[in-house]
Amino acid sequence: MANFSVDDARALAVGPQVVLADIDPASTPHFDGSKKKLTHEFTEIDEELDELQRKLYANARADMPNTGAVLLVLQGMDTSGKGGQVRHVFRAFDPQGVVHAAFGKPTEEEKAHDFLWRIAPKVPGPGMIGVFDRSHYEDVLIHRVRKLSPPEEIERRYGAINDFEAQLTQRGVKIIKVMLHISQQFQKQNLLERLEDPTKYWKYNPGDVDERALWEQYQQAYEIALRRTTTDYAPWYVVPSDNKPYARMVVKYLLLGALRDMDLDWPPAHFDVEEELHRVRNS
Amino acid sequence: MANFSVDDARALAVGPQVVLADIDPASTPHFDGSKKKLTHEFTEIDEELDELQRKLYANARADMPNTGAVLLVLQGMDTSGKGGQVRHVFRAFDPQGVVHAAFGKPTEEEKAHDFLWRIAPKVPGPGMIGVFDRSHYEDVLIHRVRKLSPPEEIERRYGAINDFEAQLTQRGVKIIKVMLHISQQFQKQNLLERLEDPTKYWKYNPGDVDERALWEQYQQAYEIALRRTTTDYAPWYVVPSDNKPYARMVVKYLLLGALRDMDLDWPPAHFDVEEELHRVRNS
Repeated sequence: MANFSVDDARALAVGPQVVLADIDPASTPHFDGSKKKLTHEFTEIDEELDELQRKLYANARADMPNTGAVLLVLQGMDTSGKGGQVRHVFRAFDPQGVVHAAFGKPTEEEKAHDFLWRIAPKVPGPGMIGVFDRSHYEDVLIHRVRKLSPPEEIERRYGAINDFEAQLTQRGVKIIKVMLHISQQFQKQNLLERLEDPTKYWKYNPGDVDERALWEQYQQAYEIALRRTTTDYAPWYVVPSDNKPYARMVVKYLLLGALRDMDLDWPPAHFDVEEELHRVRNS
Repeated sequence: MANFSVDDARALAVGPQVVLADIDPASTPHFDGSKKKLTHEFTEIDEELDELQRKLYANARADMPNTGAVLLVLQGMDTSGKGGQVRHVFRAFDPQGVVHAAFGKPTEEEKAHDFLWRIAPKVPGPGMIGVFDRSHYEDVLIHRVRKLSPPEEIERRYGAINDFEAQLTQRGVKIIKVMLHISQQFQKQNLLERLEDPTKYWKYNPGDVDERALWEQYQQAYEIALRRTTTDYAPWYVVPSDNKPYARMVVKYLLLGALRDMDLDWPPAHFDVEEELHRVRNS
């Protein structure tokens, strides 16, 4: 029944020559159905996701060696739907197996340390699915656009990020990096919605309009970051996100792909089942 | 339509003279419907829970002063359904607004500190709903039964817990403490299920049978803890839990009650709406 697949989602991976302007934020690659069909594709894989996550979690709980983890990194301009991804996609999972971290403006203490200092402790441990709402990429995005760090330091960071992510991969963390790619027009519409609906005032920040004025600079900073840090082990996916339900579906299939690749099974008993049955029956 | 209510759930609060043996773990107080009706009561309040949680979260994000938090403490014998509560009840919430902490066997570093040392950092911050799967109560339960601490230290802890919880309450954390109360027979059935189903082996721990042999001592330790630490500001609820769907429904209504009591509203704009509309339109 499904017409969207993990491979369709993965086809959105970008290479080191990616040109952001060539990707239409309003497009829905590999999907041409109705909104109803989108909902169907979205929920259809919930059962499989749930079972795979439970297996992953179970392996960690049973202390199985080399139990992996999944880390989803969400980046995107303001109003690109990072929070909505967490809200809608992650409900498919058991809250016990999910770790969520949002990286806002760094504190003074965080600023005094290397940029990865606040990131490392939030990496999901074995058996967990982690999601970063913004991430270490802010340190080569807003830092580049706003000149918050000197050019040579930003240059250093691309390599540091690749090394960091290579280390995580070797420790069994599957990294999925997603840029929620929206158009400037769509952002305007979203900002206006936040100002026209009092239940959304809290999402509005006047500073967002200042960042918006630097749209082209941000697109350029994103493009450089994508090119420098898309790797075989931690690829970047540019997900057209003017259609939010489409973008959520894509992310869900990317998570499904990562979990499937782990070849998960239920952990075996690390005790004598017959003996324990006997003990319980006589207890 | 609902025939179960927040008041029904709250009627399970216990006083300082509680006698655990008088509470039937297989009973379903204030509810006499079918399983289907239970599911209905369970899901019927999802929309309200979702909206209240979003308001709570929004208030924290908008830096509203005195934004509160909710902390659910789950205690119960092995197989009493603590994990299932998280899995089923907490899916009603946005994962961004939930913090989950499971307190297993303490590490050497944790043991070297006061028993509240590992607990305090896990208390939910403003706007969050936290859930503890086991908690500081282990330090007056297994510690009492297994004599892991001297009697005078355990005696001290009841007071320390009450002080700690009073402080949290003053800082706006609504504390809900739940003992998932099961029968010894129901535990046996659950343990056998874990041994008869290879997808559940990971949940089985041979040590659980050793603890099970101390059933009466644990009931006594629970009874003492309930009596000493049930307070107006952080009451204990003993929830009959041989019927898991019933127990989950009760907990969901307790959470609903805590959120309703907060009189939550969407935070007002802390900027000039007209001016910002103008800025966005011209951006």
